[in-house]
Amino acid sequence: MRLRLTLAYNGAAFSGWQSQRGGGGVQDALETAFRALCDGRIIVHGSGRTDAGVHALGQCAHVDVPDGRLPLGSWMMAVNARLPREVRVMRVQRASPDFHARFSASGKIYRYTIWNGPVLPPHLLDRAWLVPGTFDGERLAEACRIFTGRHDFAAFCARASKAAEPTTRTITGIRARRQGALWTLTFEGEGFLYKMVRMLTGSAVRCAAGRIAPGDLRVLLERAGPRTSYVAPAGGLCLVRVRY
Amino acid sequence: MRLRLTLAYNGAAFSGWQSQRGGGGVQDALETAFRALCDGRIIVHGSGRTDAGVHALGQCAHVDVPDGRLPLGSWMMAVNARLPREVRVMRVQRASPDFHARFSASGKIYRYTIWNGPVLPPHLLDRAWLVPGTFDGERLAEACRIFTGRHDFAAFCARASKAAEPTTRTITGIRARRQGALWTLTFEGEGFLYKMVRMLTGSAVRCAAGRIAPGDLRVLLERAGPRTSYVAPAGGLCLVRVRY
Repeated sequence: MRLRLTLAYNGAAFSGWQSQRGGGGVQDALETAFRALCDGRIIVHGSGRTDAGVHALGQCAHVDVPDGRLPLGSWMMAVNARLPREVRVMRVQRASPDFHARFSASGKIYRYTIWNGPVLPPHLLDRAWLVPGTFDGERLAEACRIFTGRHDFAAFCARASKAAEPTTRTITGIRARRQGALWTLTFEGEGFLYKMVRMLTGSAVRCAAGRIAPGDLRVLLERAGPRTSYVAPAGGLCLVRVRY
Repeated sequence: MRLRLTLAYNGAAFSGWQSQRGGGGVQDALETAFRALCDGRIIVHGSGRTDAGVHALGQCAHVDVPDGRLPLGSWMMAVNARLPREVRVMRVQRASPDFHARFSASGKIYRYTIWNGPVLPPHLLDRAWLVPGTFDGERLAEACRIFTGRHDFAAFCARASKAAEPTTRTITGIRARRQGALWTLTFEGEGFLYKMVRMLTGSAVRCAAGRIAPGDLRVLLERAGPRTSYVAPAGGLCLVRVRY
């Protein structure tokens, strides 16, 4: 039986999504919990990797479990009882055998959190990027408009695992929202390249801070290289939702 | 020179506001930092105590520092550099010599956070009370209306330090707000008795869950005793603001 999992985790507690030789990935924690319930080798397939420090509210994954091992309604509590408290299965649904967490995904929503004040309040430790000083909302909005749409994001991605991976992607929307010193950027798109959201955020924030012009971002995008070095820290990023 | 401090802290990292014999209070951390900058005995006076596990976004305190030791604008960064990262001075203002963090306070705002779902997402660990199951917003609102106003809250406070402390207080407003599974109760009043906000929340939630009737709350309030045993956990509570 194939299960579809909706997962939330605190990225600061893990070395990223992907299974590591010594353990420490979110995937390792999940596979250990499922193996204890299923006897034998179980692989948990995620919708994609998240880096060390990156959080999730709605990561998705699928896993094949033996038929009849547990009733569908019992899996969530049984797996959560065997997980560290920094990762939780928020929902379990039955999936069809051709559902694949990665290949069936049609889009993703990421949210980046910024604190534009002199001091980071403790509840945002490892959860927001502290950006003190000048922060121009108009320039931020202009950067977001420049990035939205279908572009070659070669200048805004880290080295891909395969050299030949195409770097054109469609961002359907970027929404900037402010509540006092707290800013959030919500990115929605079909899919994102490695470190792309953090590089777009780093560049947009540099623009909001007045250190580069919006036109510079347009040039970077049109030239499609070389890569920008403006990478926002991992802790501000959260995978909010995967669309299917 | 008297300074007024606005403080934020993660209550899970401390044994409460108050100074402890072995250290561990938020006050201890602050006094250690100020003593390193001032040589000699410094006392940091808070607007009131918060229990172990209770958070603050806007606790207030005052402290007397030697004139001319540092320019006013340098204190915040100097003190923060000497504090554990779970407590931050968010703002420093010069206060008049007759300002007192506790006795000058005219009101406080507390917020209690509840997660009404089967599983607590990891970013709310130690920050929200997990209340799965039935949760009726209408009954919650009715409980809030019953508590609002001037009442003898003897049934909703833990043993006071002085037996004769009066237990009548005015709650100027309680606002319940929902965003999906996340509920917040915001309490505003002149002042609150020991554990009062947690006992009001515990009782209101018990009412929302259908386990007691709104009329039972009214009776508890009118009888002004004996004390209710419904105490919401400390981690869901945050001192948002002190009014002067």
